[in-house]
Amino acid sequence: MRRLGLALCVGLVAAGLFMTRPAQAKNVAAEILDILKANGQISEQQYRDLMIKAQAEDEKAAAASGLNQKVESLEKNVGKKNFLAAHWKSGLRLDSADGKFKLKIGGRVQNDWSVYSTRKKLRRRFGRIGDGTEFRRARLFMEGSVYGNIKYKMQYDFASSDPFKDAYIQVKKLPLVGNFTVGHFKEPFSLEELTSSKYLTFMERSLPNVFASGRNLGVRFNTSFFDKRTTAAFGFFRDGNPADTDTTFGNSGIYNATTRLTLLPWYQEKGKQLVHLGLSYRHAFHDKTNQIRFRQRPEAHLGPRFVETPKFHVDDIDYFNPEVAVVYGPASLQFEWLSALVDRPAGDDIQYDGYYIFGSFFLTGERRPYKTSSGAFDRVKPKNNFDGRGGLGALELAARYSMLDLNDEGLNGGELANFSLGLNWYLNPNVRFMLNYVRAMLDEDDCYYKGNMTDSCGDADIVQARFQVDF
Amino acid sequence: MRRLGLALCVGLVAAGLFMTRPAQAKNVAAEILDILKANGQISEQQYRDLMIKAQAEDEKAAAASGLNQKVESLEKNVGKKNFLAAHWKSGLRLDSADGKFKLKIGGRVQNDWSVYSTRKKLRRRFGRIGDGTEFRRARLFMEGSVYGNIKYKMQYDFASSDPFKDAYIQVKKLPLVGNFTVGHFKEPFSLEELTSSKYLTFMERSLPNVFASGRNLGVRFNTSFFDKRTTAAFGFFRDGNPADTDTTFGNSGIYNATTRLTLLPWYQEKGKQLVHLGLSYRHAFHDKTNQIRFRQRPEAHLGPRFVETPKFHVDDIDYFNPEVAVVYGPASLQFEWLSALVDRPAGDDIQYDGYYIFGSFFLTGERRPYKTSSGAFDRVKPKNNFDGRGGLGALELAARYSMLDLNDEGLNGGELANFSLGLNWYLNPNVRFMLNYVRAMLDEDDCYYKGNMTDSCGDADIVQARFQVDF
Amino acid sequence: MRRLGLALCVGLVAAGLFMTRPAQAKNVAAEILDILKANGQISEQQYRDLMIKAQAEDEKAAAASGLNQKVESLEKNVGKKNFLAAHWKSGLRLDSADGKFKLKIGGRVQNDWSVYSTRKKLRRRFGRIGDGTEFRRARLFMEGSVYGNIKYKMQYDFASSDPFKDAYIQVKKLPLVGNFTVGHFKEPFSLEELTSSKYLTFMERSLPNVFASGRNLGVRFNTSFFDKRTTAAFGFFRDGNPADTDTTFGNSGIYNATTRLTLLPWYQEKGKQLVHLGLSYRHAFHDKTNQIRFRQRPEAHLGPRFVETPKFHVDDIDYFNPEVAVVYGPASLQFEWLSALVDRPAGDDIQYDGYYIFGSFFLTGERRPYKTSSGAFDRVKPKNNFDGRGGLGALELAARYSMLDLNDEGLNGGELANFSLGLNWYLNPNVRFMLNYVRAMLDEDDCYYKGNMTDSCGDADIVQARFQVDF
Repeated sequence: MRRLGLALCVGLVAAGLFMTRPAQAKNVAAEILDILKANGQISEQQYRDLMIKAQAEDEKAAAASGLNQKVESLEKNVGKKNFLAAHWKSGLRLDSADGKFKLKIGGRVQNDWSVYSTRKKLRRRFGRIGDGTEFRRARLFMEGSVYGNIKYKMQYDFASSDPFKDAYIQVKKLPLVGNFTVGHFKEPFSLEELTSSKYLTFMERSLPNVFASGRNLGVRFNTSFFDKRTTAAFGFFRDGNPADTDTTFGNSGIYNATTRLTLLPWYQEKGKQLVHLGLSYRHAFHDKTNQIRFRQRPEAHLGPRFVETPKFHVDDIDYFNPEVAVVYGPASLQFEWLSALVDRPAGDDIQYDGYYIFGSFFLTGERRPYKTSSGAFDRVKPKNNFDGRGGLGALELAARYSMLDLNDEGLNGGELANFSLGLNWYLNPNVRFMLNYVRAMLDEDDCYYKGNMTDSCGDADIVQARFQVDF
Repeated sequence: MRRLGLALCVGLVAAGLFMTRPAQAKNVAAEILDILKANGQISEQQYRDLMIKAQAEDEKAAAASGLNQKVESLEKNVGKKNFLAAHWKSGLRLDSADGKFKLKIGGRVQNDWSVYSTRKKLRRRFGRIGDGTEFRRARLFMEGSVYGNIKYKMQYDFASSDPFKDAYIQVKKLPLVGNFTVGHFKEPFSLEELTSSKYLTFMERSLPNVFASGRNLGVRFNTSFFDKRTTAAFGFFRDGNPADTDTTFGNSGIYNATTRLTLLPWYQEKGKQLVHLGLSYRHAFHDKTNQIRFRQRPEAHLGPRFVETPKFHVDDIDYFNPEVAVVYGPASLQFEWLSALVDRPAGDDIQYDGYYIFGSFFLTGERRPYKTSSGAFDRVKPKNNFDGRGGLGALELAARYSMLDLNDEGLNGGELANFSLGLNWYLNPNVRFMLNYVRAMLDEDDCYYKGNMTDSCGDADIVQARFQVDF
Repeated sequence: MRRLGLALCVGLVAAGLFMTRPAQAKNVAAEILDILKANGQISEQQYRDLMIKAQAEDEKAAAASGLNQKVESLEKNVGKKNFLAAHWKSGLRLDSADGKFKLKIGGRVQNDWSVYSTRKKLRRRFGRIGDGTEFRRARLFMEGSVYGNIKYKMQYDFASSDPFKDAYIQVKKLPLVGNFTVGHFKEPFSLEELTSSKYLTFMERSLPNVFASGRNLGVRFNTSFFDKRTTAAFGFFRDGNPADTDTTFGNSGIYNATTRLTLLPWYQEKGKQLVHLGLSYRHAFHDKTNQIRFRQRPEAHLGPRFVETPKFHVDDIDYFNPEVAVVYGPASLQFEWLSALVDRPAGDDIQYDGYYIFGSFFLTGERRPYKTSSGAFDRVKPKNNFDGRGGLGALELAARYSMLDLNDEGLNGGELANFSLGLNWYLNPNVRFMLNYVRAMLDEDDCYYKGNMTDSCGDADIVQARFQVDF
């Protein structure tokens, strides 16, 4: 009877084994157990318990070995040569594991809204400047670092009458000369100009930016020293007319030799505290047959140009630009002075100049990030993104005063000062809302326009907002 | 002799073991077998068989443990933070595993061909309208949902004189107000207008679409209730002149307050059967200094505008638009009536209006998919894609009648009716070929153009085809 | 004492086991060891050694089984339906594992710089042709092969006044007819025209390319036979005016029936040695109301058109174009003759024609790759990429002579010959620098312009360089 029970029991266990893995042989441990049992070295209880355990181990091993196929199928998907892992890091990035290939595809959209209120005298000149809305910038780009030493970028602005933005090829890490770049890109001149429009503290660059050359077709060498505590860049460019917005390629006959040096005498905790000093210089060789002029809007893009010199002939122009910036945690200060020394074929030299100074403070504790390799400011990343459930994003307050004097030697365009207040709300690293108030003050005592004395000067109040996404 | 044979045999087995895994130690099971054998508890045969088995298990275990490295290398490729899995789902999609980041990159190309046959009287007005071909639309877009609560889109049409299409930022799932959108996008008005041009049943929207405002710069709130059985949207927009195709930003002085409500009183089997009811309303605040006009082509883009009112001054306009759509499996019906009530600074109010009704039937059994979140129609997906080996794609037949009356109170632009037949061949979810016949009937009894009575009215026959890919 | 030591020792081992895997049960092998030890069948030393081994095996097994979760998480990332593996293969590619979905996103940038030196006589006609720089091409494209049998492409050139480039839908592998393409793409005419501008040996196509039709809206069938040793293509297109660069869609009234046949009588080692023969033919049906003209620049894009016929009426034109190319390792030769036989409504038939021949040699041993499916040349891939550390890239030298005769029957436009030298430096498969010297010789004995005899002919020397990236 007992034997029968035992046989039944063993039979059931065996049946159970067959049901779960009918065609599978026992593993070695199970076989040893059989032997031990046959030799009477283990009890029935031990045998049964260990048999179940051995089976479980075997199944585990089988599962692990089944992974092989899964992993092979995954490798088929992602094991290609130069596989690029797509991921989001303040934008779409595609990187190879060895770092030799890095692609970015993205763009930016800036939608501006503005309201103007002008004094009676100004209205006499410009008429009523109404409210308005526009796409300030609407860009797409593709960018890549490939084969470990080549970088390229192509960027197009659909909202601009001068739509070619960055479009260049760069050979990186050349011996002695550092990086060599050819194509259409920003001349190395002015901290504010070289800070991307995505990262500007105010909606518009300041008044003296009229002396910065922006993007031109040319070549540039740039490098950095001393653990990136200093950068140096030198370039040679074919310029469109710097006084007009319409840069036409190949027709202007102006060549620029441009250089910029930056230094970080103080740099703590990856930029939490820093002092930036810079000096940019540009010598513009002018074609004597062309005339140029300088003109500028107030710090609001939907308005008209408040100051404008007459057109005049030029031999060459020297542009100087010392830069200072200080970051101390959430607080920062920035100052630049820009000046143009014009050498004319006839008549005395002229000097136009301007400056700006601004301060910014993050109420939420972030700071303005500084990029050492380029010597310019970078993307603000909120400590907490806005998520509709408590996360607020980052809040920044800023104030700026800027001045532009285009009066000299009878070639007068007027004198304009701007005082601005700014509030920036960064919802996350890629989306921000900006609100700017600008008081534009056209000097009434020394009021010129296109060379003529005029009495239609005075103040304008401008409120403008920007909705920005960059991706 | 026998011992020698045995020793030889054991030697060979051992040699075999060493050849395959020369430097590897035995696993525990093998060692136990050695002990059992040394103790004489297992036979030679048992020992040899189990030894081989133990070796096989060991190799399996080694292989499984070798996976570790492979998996680590895969993780290096695809385990980045916010890794985006690229895949094709009616277009290129890049999704993070947590669903917080979803990107799309794509576009559409529509190449149209058309042949016109006009009656003698019409030719008197428009001359001979020849055959032609054009890119009706050629768009690229980038779109993303990022950080779980922000959506953006940038879309550009290279074939349009008004190339900015969707370009907006959306903050999703705000408490109380739902989604908030700012930028350039479609005003919430008219089912046909809000159905993407990729998914339209006919090549062109119907005649009364002249009263829909299309895309403008502005802000919108939208939400849905009752398990998406009803949607509500309200927006405020700065409008270009609705009567001209050339929408210029910021200059028109027209502001639109626009709202739309939709309801699904009947909705079965995920839209296999449904009744859609909608009501759109727009109040346009006009700048009294501008004049407007209404004008429209027949339902064919390569032809001239058959009806056109004179220009006139406007105080404000109320636009009404009730919508009805029914889907019953492969069959569907759609009807809209659009009307403009014009309040003028001088003279009586004017009413212009129009309507359309169409039916469609899928010979191959598909249906027109309805998207509950937007209250509009969506992408048709054939049951079998065309593959050149039996798969046919989807075939749809459709007929439409539409009418537009631009005659009222002496400000007459003419009355136009269109009857259309359509055949759509969907090769797969992304490619389709469309063939349309349009009979455009310019009312001869009540024939006006730019306010003048004229006798150059009559009928035109138009055959047009479209090759479309969207991706 | 000895027992105490032993107990301590066992205790420590046990403690060690507990510390590393406190909650884990022993595996079967360990349990068997326990039994063997309890039965006195193994020594203490054996027991301890094997116990450690058993533990190690168990840990290994546990690690392998832990992979399961990792692999599942990877599968979540990359196991989506139609997962597209992004990778770099001379550009960004996204491929599904089954090969049914293949996407490409990319573009090209070509930045040209040029200097002209013209003889006095030529300056009388064209003025001083200065130096200049431009974006010759700046394109973006998206391309896909989807559902296994559909291909599409959309390509836009931001630097061109005729910005639509490839924009088509292709149905592949149809029975009998091969591939069917509809949209905007190159007519099947001329080897040099069908070789992408990315892969041209010289910066510009040769003078007789004025007779090639380039891209037009239309349909095409194409296929290949005999293991791709021969290709055949036939298409029907609506043409813009072939004599003007400004192709307008739908207005020209010119239709082209175009066909091309190619043959590889000799093809060794995947194209290391080959002879290509081709014949293109185009019949252009002209609208009698339009006038046309032929005009051409020297082989430099920034200069003016040196030769130009007067405008004249046309019935139809037959274009003939035999092609020959030979590749022999790093050396290659290419020759084409193009001719236009013009049938006029009044007056005798006219024949204009031209030819070019060029040779190229790779100093670094590469060769010009030939693509059998299209019967045209393809991307050069350097044996070693330029890396700033010894890798040089590929260097190619080339010389070309080309001639264009636009004088016949009194409808004279002049006769122009060009001799060119070229140096190409391929840094890697995607970046190259080109340097061209062109001597353009306007025939002085037979000097016409717009039908008029003139004495302002002579030679021009042009040096031009191109920086190119395609991605």
